[in-house]
Amino acid sequence: MYDVAIIGKGPAGISAAINAKARNKSVIIFGRDSKKVMLSPSIHNYPGFIEIKGPELIEKLNNHLQTLDVHTSSKMVNMIYTMDGYFSIQAETDMIEAKTVILSVGVDFKKSIENEDKFLGSGVSYCATCDAPLYKGKVVGVVGYNKESIEETKFLSEVCKKVYFVPAVNEDFDFSNNVEIIKDVPLKFEGDFTAKKLLLKNSEVEADGFFVIKDSYPLGTLVPGLEVDGAHVKVNKNMETNIKGLYAAGDITGKPYQIAKAVGEGQLAALYAADYIDNLG
Amino acid sequence: MYDVAIIGKGPAGISAAINAKARNKSVIIFGRDSKKVMLSPSIHNYPGFIEIKGPELIEKLNNHLQTLDVHTSSKMVNMIYTMDGYFSIQAETDMIEAKTVILSVGVDFKKSIENEDKFLGSGVSYCATCDAPLYKGKVVGVVGYNKESIEETKFLSEVCKKVYFVPAVNEDFDFSNNVEIIKDVPLKFEGDFTAKKLLLKNSEVEADGFFVIKDSYPLGTLVPGLEVDGAHVKVNKNMETNIKGLYAAGDITGKPYQIAKAVGEGQLAALYAADYIDNLG
Repeated sequence: MYDVAIIGKGPAGISAAINAKARNKSVIIFGRDSKKVMLSPSIHNYPGFIEIKGPELIEKLNNHLQTLDVHTSSKMVNMIYTMDGYFSIQAETDMIEAKTVILSVGVDFKKSIENEDKFLGSGVSYCATCDAPLYKGKVVGVVGYNKESIEETKFLSEVCKKVYFVPAVNEDFDFSNNVEIIKDVPLKFEGDFTAKKLLLKNSEVEADGFFVIKDSYPLGTLVPGLEVDGAHVKVNKNMETNIKGLYAAGDITGKPYQIAKAVGEGQLAALYAADYIDNLG
Repeated sequence: MYDVAIIGKGPAGISAAINAKARNKSVIIFGRDSKKVMLSPSIHNYPGFIEIKGPELIEKLNNHLQTLDVHTSSKMVNMIYTMDGYFSIQAETDMIEAKTVILSVGVDFKKSIENEDKFLGSGVSYCATCDAPLYKGKVVGVVGYNKESIEETKFLSEVCKKVYFVPAVNEDFDFSNNVEIIKDVPLKFEGDFTAKKLLLKNSEVEADGFFVIKDSYPLGTLVPGLEVDGAHVKVNKNMETNIKGLYAAGDITGKPYQIAKAVGEGQLAALYAADYIDNLG
């Protein structure tokens, strides 16, 4: 069991990892490089760097992380279960346990598709690796918001009879014949007990099930019972959420969406998580 | 009138200055380099720098500050007066006005001398430059906690008949004949209406007035009416104090005393101060 599991590898998550290691805790960090920082052409207000390009800062943060004995995983975290005194973290097909969790997944401005929440687990899935076996030989639809959705679609096309792929990314696709690309805007899932139809702006797709592949999941889905305020997690000054042992840091706690704020909160979350662990006895 | 006056030039203050300038505000920053950072032989948990010596980080922060159009002053701030919609800041003999103030003076672990607060302004002064004229031709005592107290004592010896100097610093002194050095531990001020006597562990000094020269002043004295909690200023999540337009950031807001926390809070204080100014209309 890890002392601290950090979900999200942006500035807040990396700051949390650095500071949890400073307190000698075992750490696993999930996530990929922050797209928001990566796409910043020039950052002027992170103290110590007069001017730094986003990718350069990411490299410095990653180098900093690599000097420490921290486990990293690029798997998507699908669900965090609150157990009795610890947490179980489902990351695709992995199950990881940790005494504390620090949520630093950023904010997602993308709206969900109507009824996405309602049908989640009933015909709508966020994880192809996990749920593909349910649709062996059947027809599925994939709504893809990131590059990884292309790989996921390829994988599904090997398992399923037919895959409809609705891409929100502009890429060249090289799929097998049973993948049909639909360039349209997804609006709504429909069905009686499970999602059976995806309505789009100019068309519709019928399938046995659907996969929505994106970089982050709605918070209420990720951590059942977590107190949120819109797109943000409610925290107190010590970065504690309403769930004991669960902390949040960075953009996910609210505006301003800034790097210095994020590293400060990541540090606080890690140090208070360390205190919490030390008091578990 | 400045938009933002920042009191304290440690990581929190410099982060506040950088972020206030990012919002196009006029800024003055008071203070000297953070002694605490300067004395850190090696810092490992400020994200982006795998390992950095304290003086090196100070240099990077100062270089960052110097790229911006920020006024700096090394004068000691003696008092901050809350006016109607702005602040008046007394820095030795200067009077500066600002729409907002960010307090980032750090924490001071030194205990006050007994009755220091009681006699402040009545025989006890924090500012030789300001109050020396009151003691022309008279006898004064100086309790000196920093190097600057040596210069202050020299200055007082030119104005006063006699100066008793109680040093808390280990330096070589080169004073004129009317300065008497007393190596003892100051305990308590005594007097009827004004301080007339300083009791020390093994001796006592009688004088017409006393100067206490140190790097920071008790918060209650610095900003009358400021809500404090022991050595810390009470702030909410937006770094607002109980006084409108007055913010605090860094060690002064409480533990942990850490650089990442300080720069995060400095950023928040500056951005919320900028919002406040924009809404003054």
